[in-house]
Amino acid sequence: MRTKFKQWAVDYLKESPNIFTLEDIDSLKNYLKENKCFLEIGPGKGKFILGMAKKFPNYNFLVVEISPTIAGICLKKIDEDGEIHNVKMVADDFFKLSSLLDKETFDGIFLNFSDPWPKKRHEKRRLTSKLFLESYKNILKSDGKIYFKTDNDDFFAYSRESFIENGFNIIYENLDYQVDPNVDEETEFEEKFKSHDIKIKRLILTK
Amino acid sequence: MRTKFKQWAVDYLKESPNIFTLEDIDSLKNYLKENKCFLEIGPGKGKFILGMAKKFPNYNFLVVEISPTIAGICLKKIDEDGEIHNVKMVADDFFKLSSLLDKETFDGIFLNFSDPWPKKRHEKRRLTSKLFLESYKNILKSDGKIYFKTDNDDFFAYSRESFIENGFNIIYENLDYQVDPNVDEETEFEEKFKSHDIKIKRLILTK
Repeated sequence: MRTKFKQWAVDYLKESPNIFTLEDIDSLKNYLKENKCFLEIGPGKGKFILGMAKKFPNYNFLVVEISPTIAGICLKKIDEDGEIHNVKMVADDFFKLSSLLDKETFDGIFLNFSDPWPKKRHEKRRLTSKLFLESYKNILKSDGKIYFKTDNDDFFAYSRESFIENGFNIIYENLDYQVDPNVDEETEFEEKFKSHDIKIKRLILTK
Repeated sequence: MRTKFKQWAVDYLKESPNIFTLEDIDSLKNYLKENKCFLEIGPGKGKFILGMAKKFPNYNFLVVEISPTIAGICLKKIDEDGEIHNVKMVADDFFKLSSLLDKETFDGIFLNFSDPWPKKRHEKRRLTSKLFLESYKNILKSDGKIYFKTDNDDFFAYSRESFIENGFNIIYENLDYQVDPNVDEETEFEEKFKSHDIKIKRLILTK
């Protein structure tokens, strides 16, 4: 999601009770040890993670978002929901977060409609490029899973190959995926695409 | 060290046999497992690490430098030395490197005359600020050490406090340090400062 800079969103990051700064890494680690825990990288406006947090109140969710504006928008939505106690935000760079966490922290990582960065020279920014996948291996538990959804055919093909090249195993593949509301949640993208003829591709992978 | 962009230096990074890209993280990990290994963050022009590599031919050294120009200048110097087989370069962001490495990788980390980033708003860039120290803890072996030298009084005071606050133990402190050539090596800075009346401050720390 690309969004114009919004000062109120950036300011909001300082107020929220549900943000962890990386300076407070010990508190974050404790939160992640309380229950099974799941990471979403790039939460958009937070529709998905809010829904998941309600569906699975005994799991702990973390979102990481590098854009302060998007992080602020998402966090405000989470906070305003009121009911939620099990979603926290890190508004910082994923690799910084990853470098500070213990190995084998997460039961799952969600990659939902990540930016496809279609230009070859931007390949390293794709969340399914090699460096990201290597880092996911470090922070995923041995039986942890990656949950990947996209509408973009080229990005799906690239990601599928990258996962395989980097040693991940596909345990689920669906090229015309419909959200199963028992175990998954709709994102803003899926909501928008419903009325169009756009197929959602989904993979679930283990390391 | 601040240096103007130099295209030749950036180009040189593609030619050198002594560079590891993070895409080749498995080869890098193997190199680091061969022997005792030491990391220098910000190697300047490489005088220190070249000297150390010659003094300790059975240890493996890695330097990480985020500026491609400085990395290229340093690497060319290392390569032109000819004799050296135990210094390798990663020309990338430290946190990316750290997020991909195994825990407890290094026997030592060298911080030599790091940029003091004197403005408060740049505190997070200091190599002795909290996030860096947390990350060093992860990649240092349990008996690993940090070797810290600086000429800058304010940066020394800041760093000393930051190390202590973040759980490091000072096992050596010298406020008027002279290089002991049996165990340490002069940097470009110390060479330059010799003729001036500038005292070098040094700490050695364990986690």
